Amino acid sequence: MTDLLLPQIQRLATQHAADTVALRRHLHAYPELSFEETNTAVFVTRELEKLGLQPQPIANTGVVALIEGLPGGPTIALRADMDALPILEANDVPYKSTNPGVMHACGHDVHTASLLGAARILNELKGEFKGNIKLMFQPGEERLPGGASLMIEEGVLENPAVSRVLGQHVFPHLPAGKVGLRAGRYMASTDELYLTVRGKGGHGAMPEMNLDPVLVAAHIIVAAQQIVSRRANPKLPSVLSFGKVIANGATNVIPNEVYLEGTFRTLNEEWRNEAHQHLRRLCEGLADSMGAVCELEIRRGYPYLENEPALTARVKAAAEAYLGPENVVELDQWMAAEDFAYFSQAGPACFYRLGTRHEDGRFAASVHTPTFDIDEKALATGPGLMAWLAVKELAGE
Amino acid sequence: MTDLLLPQIQRLATQHAADTVALRRHLHAYPELSFEETNTAVFVTRELEKLGLQPQPIANTGVVALIEGLPGGPTIALRADMDALPILEANDVPYKSTNPGVMHACGHDVHTASLLGAARILNELKGEFKGNIKLMFQPGEERLPGGASLMIEEGVLENPAVSRVLGQHVFPHLPAGKVGLRAGRYMASTDELYLTVRGKGGHGAMPEMNLDPVLVAAHIIVAAQQIVSRRANPKLPSVLSFGKVIANGATNVIPNEVYLEGTFRTLNEEWRNEAHQHLRRLCEGLADSMGAVCELEIRRGYPYLENEPALTARVKAAAEAYLGPENVVELDQWMAAEDFAYFSQAGPACFYRLGTRHEDGRFAASVHTPTFDIDEKALATGPGLMAWLAVKELAGE
Amino acid sequence: MTDLLLPQIQRLATQHAADTVALRRHLHAYPELSFEETNTAVFVTRELEKLGLQPQPIANTGVVALIEGLPGGPTIALRADMDALPILEANDVPYKSTNPGVMHACGHDVHTASLLGAARILNELKGEFKGNIKLMFQPGEERLPGGASLMIEEGVLENPAVSRVLGQHVFPHLPAGKVGLRAGRYMASTDELYLTVRGKGGHGAMPEMNLDPVLVAAHIIVAAQQIVSRRANPKLPSVLSFGKVIANGATNVIPNEVYLEGTFRTLNEEWRNEAHQHLRRLCEGLADSMGAVCELEIRRGYPYLENEPALTARVKAAAEAYLGPENVVELDQWMAAEDFAYFSQAGPACFYRLGTRHEDGRFAASVHTPTFDIDEKALATGPGLMAWLAVKELAGE
Amino acid sequence: MTDLLLPQIQRLATQHAADTVALRRHLHAYPELSFEETNTAVFVTRELEKLGLQPQPIANTGVVALIEGLPGGPTIALRADMDALPILEANDVPYKSTNPGVMHACGHDVHTASLLGAARILNELKGEFKGNIKLMFQPGEERLPGGASLMIEEGVLENPAVSRVLGQHVFPHLPAGKVGLRAGRYMASTDELYLTVRGKGGHGAMPEMNLDPVLVAAHIIVAAQQIVSRRANPKLPSVLSFGKVIANGATNVIPNEVYLEGTFRTLNEEWRNEAHQHLRRLCEGLADSMGAVCELEIRRGYPYLENEPALTARVKAAAEAYLGPENVVELDQWMAAEDFAYFSQAGPACFYRLGTRHEDGRFAASVHTPTFDIDEKALATGPGLMAWLAVKELAGE
Repeated sequence: MTDLLLPQIQRLATQHAADTVALRRHLHAYPELSFEETNTAVFVTRELEKLGLQPQPIANTGVVALIEGLPGGPTIALRADMDALPILEANDVPYKSTNPGVMHACGHDVHTASLLGAARILNELKGEFKGNIKLMFQPGEERLPGGASLMIEEGVLENPAVSRVLGQHVFPHLPAGKVGLRAGRYMASTDELYLTVRGKGGHGAMPEMNLDPVLVAAHIIVAAQQIVSRRANPKLPSVLSFGKVIANGATNVIPNEVYLEGTFRTLNEEWRNEAHQHLRRLCEGLADSMGAVCELEIRRGYPYLENEPALTARVKAAAEAYLGPENVVELDQWMAAEDFAYFSQAGPACFYRLGTRHEDGRFAASVHTPTFDIDEKALATGPGLMAWLAVKELAGE
Repeated sequence: MTDLLLPQIQRLATQHAADTVALRRHLHAYPELSFEETNTAVFVTRELEKLGLQPQPIANTGVVALIEGLPGGPTIALRADMDALPILEANDVPYKSTNPGVMHACGHDVHTASLLGAARILNELKGEFKGNIKLMFQPGEERLPGGASLMIEEGVLENPAVSRVLGQHVFPHLPAGKVGLRAGRYMASTDELYLTVRGKGGHGAMPEMNLDPVLVAAHIIVAAQQIVSRRANPKLPSVLSFGKVIANGATNVIPNEVYLEGTFRTLNEEWRNEAHQHLRRLCEGLADSMGAVCELEIRRGYPYLENEPALTARVKAAAEAYLGPENVVELDQWMAAEDFAYFSQAGPACFYRLGTRHEDGRFAASVHTPTFDIDEKALATGPGLMAWLAVKELAGE
Repeated sequence: MTDLLLPQIQRLATQHAADTVALRRHLHAYPELSFEETNTAVFVTRELEKLGLQPQPIANTGVVALIEGLPGGPTIALRADMDALPILEANDVPYKSTNPGVMHACGHDVHTASLLGAARILNELKGEFKGNIKLMFQPGEERLPGGASLMIEEGVLENPAVSRVLGQHVFPHLPAGKVGLRAGRYMASTDELYLTVRGKGGHGAMPEMNLDPVLVAAHIIVAAQQIVSRRANPKLPSVLSFGKVIANGATNVIPNEVYLEGTFRTLNEEWRNEAHQHLRRLCEGLADSMGAVCELEIRRGYPYLENEPALTARVKAAAEAYLGPENVVELDQWMAAEDFAYFSQAGPACFYRLGTRHEDGRFAASVHTPTFDIDEKALATGPGLMAWLAVKELAGE
Repeated sequence: MTDLLLPQIQRLATQHAADTVALRRHLHAYPELSFEETNTAVFVTRELEKLGLQPQPIANTGVVALIEGLPGGPTIALRADMDALPILEANDVPYKSTNPGVMHACGHDVHTASLLGAARILNELKGEFKGNIKLMFQPGEERLPGGASLMIEEGVLENPAVSRVLGQHVFPHLPAGKVGLRAGRYMASTDELYLTVRGKGGHGAMPEMNLDPVLVAAHIIVAAQQIVSRRANPKLPSVLSFGKVIANGATNVIPNEVYLEGTFRTLNEEWRNEAHQHLRRLCEGLADSMGAVCELEIRRGYPYLENEPALTARVKAAAEAYLGPENVVELDQWMAAEDFAYFSQAGPACFYRLGTRHEDGRFAASVHTPTFDIDEKALATGPGLMAWLAVKELAGE
């Protein structure tokens, strides 16, 4: 039955395509940093009001709205993130950021415009399906503690209770027109590591008078490899990286302390916690064994993101129906993190990737770079596909 | 015979003591950085001209002059260094530096004033001894390549040929009125190490795409310990320190490269050269074994300083005669470096330390600190002792 | 159609169960080491001849035979391994090894008896299916280069050409009556590492006269962690272990060399080869950087074992039909190695695990231990299941 | 006055030379291991009794005797060690060891014969000097706790109280006819290190199930370098060596534990104790930081050996008078250990080296090797020189 909606959705998506592009370009031109999405929220609110919806603020700069279909169905939530990054845009385009040093370099403009587009389609078809669509426009995906966790705390998944959550994300590794996804554990948990190794500085010529924190820090970096190489289950992906080391003495001056920063990522909460304990014992104990002190702060970031297998299998089948099987690809795991993971921890959820590269190779710049941009043909795919996936889920098919 | 000069020298030293203090305070108030000692050189030149001597410039901002005694004796050189350090003086004294950010924090004002005082005494007694005194006021002791090496290149030890060189240095570990010295290898050679470890930076979540230079640099620091612990002869002091490490990525950003600075010090030229080879092979080879590149620059500093044993034994005996045996102490080796080492490599030389601490504990601040100062009682010792040591050496006693 | 055979196979398996136990007990009592399975081969040959088959020797001590069904179908190969381990059995059972120091501690007696049992069933039903069953009894699974590779070289997969291979293995982590399997990359490739680190030995008091290979070997062990922690893709399981280190000097005697042994395992041939290169460069280069020599021999063992996904899905469905869905479980990857991997590299293959633990907790000892034994209820499952899987594959269902 | 004895001693030494060689060859032919010197003690006792002395046993297999000169002088002790080594002699000489596997490969035969020769000379001259000579033939120099410490405990330095101790030792680096010595800290303290690193063994393919003690042991070896490279005063010789490492698993078997042996040597008791603490904290703490356990046993060996400077200066002058200045050389420090060190800790003592190489290069084999032997011309030097040094010390000259 639902399948009859497919051509309708495709037609509406085509009709609205130019409008969706315009929405995306407006958002791109006026980016705002995480948790400062004030104007973006006003913009989204007005667009939803134009549809006759009653959007509500949530988590300060977030927006939530409900499309009510025919009575008797479940509630499916669709999520987009709205914040931009502190990057100076290097693209020379008509819709270039007008807020220098702030840029939609992670495609959140595309996510937001696509969700507005999906909302318009679903709103027009709400007499054709049973159940509700909850539209979740979230703030602060790029910054701890993540807008998703705040919205969940404020009850976004209740009243009416959400049974499944869908989200999409731009992906310059795939051409526009294709989507990719992976069932099961898909993206990593991420934790930030901050270490200070304290010794006793002094003249580099007199080691017996000092306690060299540089050597202790080097030993910590070297020894910490064992967390991944010897303590982790090799079948469970784990990454431990130290990106910053600052020992600010001089050729002949041993500094008092060394400062380090790093990251730990994995795909299992139990091992994540265990690894934290191993790392703390290693860093603190190793420094102590050398007469020094190591202070380790572990700032917990997002949990790992799990695409619920049954839901993901249905999403895949529905996407194949909508785009053709040749346009739906299986993805590898990804050690990057995403705060959509909070939705996946709260209940069945599926997060899929929307191809944004042009077939001729343009628009291949990575996200989080000053030259990131998309082939806007992706905006012909994003809104309609999301609407279609939602109605399929409402129908429980 | 020469012994009859001892009471005379002591008397003259006492007479001139206040003048020497005035000279030192003037120099202290107008410090100049290494190789920029223009006004200091003019000041020294005028003081020497007041004595009727004919000082000559050397090595740009250095000064050399000759006191000619009775014919038929050798030439003994006395050396003082004149440059100051880039330190903001923290002492509240009448003679405080008037050149903010530049300070005589290593006592070169004391060395210069003492040599001027010794020159005055020796000039007054030049009818009483055979031979010549060469007065060497050198620039740039604190900075490579060292004023001593430049003066030697310009011939300071020739015309007439110098047979021995004496030098003295302030020493806050000894009370004023005492001197210390050590025969044989006394101070270390010093070499500056500059390393750049190049890998391939990238996202901290994707180690397989990067080549982590942070881990390679840590391995180099750890492995380099073996130069001292396993390759060096344990009976030959060696120090290898890394004081600076800059890996400037972030929690989740692996940098492209890591920059390090360090120092290597020892007391034997053959081993010094061998150690450089070991270190180069270790740093370059270890990085290469991990797929990275390490560029190591070794900037050779001063050689080790050797107090010629026979000369030092005579200096010790003469100092005991002048100050009393209880005021002449044997010193331990010192891993710091001094460009007087170049004189000690060129021929017999002796470098001794002049106590500058007050007996009550004042003036104990280390050299190269903003609160360094001396008990000026040391200026009653420095000039006369140097004059006495010189006439003893001229007499070959 | 084939489904009609299911109850027949189950009935035959029940009828033959006691005989299968007897076969297994005989094999268990007379174990032979890898590539020395002479009597075992004679035993297997006679059992097959009793069925009217014409077994042929292969790879010296291997046996191959063909059951020809109705014309017009493909050929499916079933594989069992026959060799035992150099372990002294510690079980006090009637069928205890009569060859002291040799023991079927890895269940190959069970595999061989099960395949004989499956052969008997299939032979009785050969008028009911189209196609052939190739019975492969292989020697030397436990020892390089592995009997599977030798049999493949001698053409076991040709004449008639084999289209799929099935194999089973005891698994004390599952109760008897259950089987487990996993699609895709299931078991690891394995390579043995032999290292000799050569320095220059001597008195422990005189490091400057020696070149300490103990420290170099320690650095190699520590630095090699990075192959797993930094060079491997974290999503691709890799293990590098050093189990043996022999530095045979004394408290005050540095030895000339250190000997090490280790293993490297992973699940991707490209990365396996790349890792070998990284490891060679690391071990040889790091030793050289310290003035020593490291000789590394990498003995390539079995490749990784891949269960072809479509075949494995069919096997899973067929097993669920035979045992009930509750008795078929999904397994995790396994970093151990198996020479069945050679079959999986040659074409579609599926290797599944046969539960052998008793529900009350008995028979939980790990394989390769002197107390390993099985709940013989597993022998009621093994032969019939294998026969069923074979006929299902012949039918292409 | 004493100087008149010099020619007498030289004449007696020449007269007795052949007898001394015979004594040495007898001792060499009948070597006994440490603390088992029963027959050697009987032999020495009889030789002393032949001189009319009254030797007494001490420390089981040691011998002590007193030569009483004229009344009114001090007591000088002369020491020789008597034990041999567990080495199979490889020399083909008439006096080859008759006790296979036991050999005087450290020259204690030479020391004992020389002391017997010196005793004979001094006994003949005892009417010519004031004071006593205490002859100390000690057992067990080669084995902890050292015969010297046992003899001191049993009072060898009392009744009459010994004021100075002299000892000599063969030295194949110098030609026979020469002696060498060094004032001050001459030989090292030595401590034996025994470590067991306990983890959890298991299959090399499953690191997550094990706790790898091999990696922990490697980290300990690497990290312990810092005791010498960063904690020690570089001017104070220190050596830390690990000569034995036994990790007895296999390519794919991680062992439960790793066993290590090593040595620590230095020249300062305070630093020695401090270094023990650093080492304990490092080994135990580092293992604990990695989840393992390290048990460290430090067996204290001999202390450092100090040649009292004033005594050594007198010995040097006396040796120059006896042998000619060209035959007395200054030695470098030596990181080997000697239990004569206990005498040097108890009071003024001097330990000098007796050249034993032939001028043509023969007899250059190191001590503790199966081909060690001496140019017996050294036996013309050893007894007379020791007698001369003793009478000079008695005379306080």
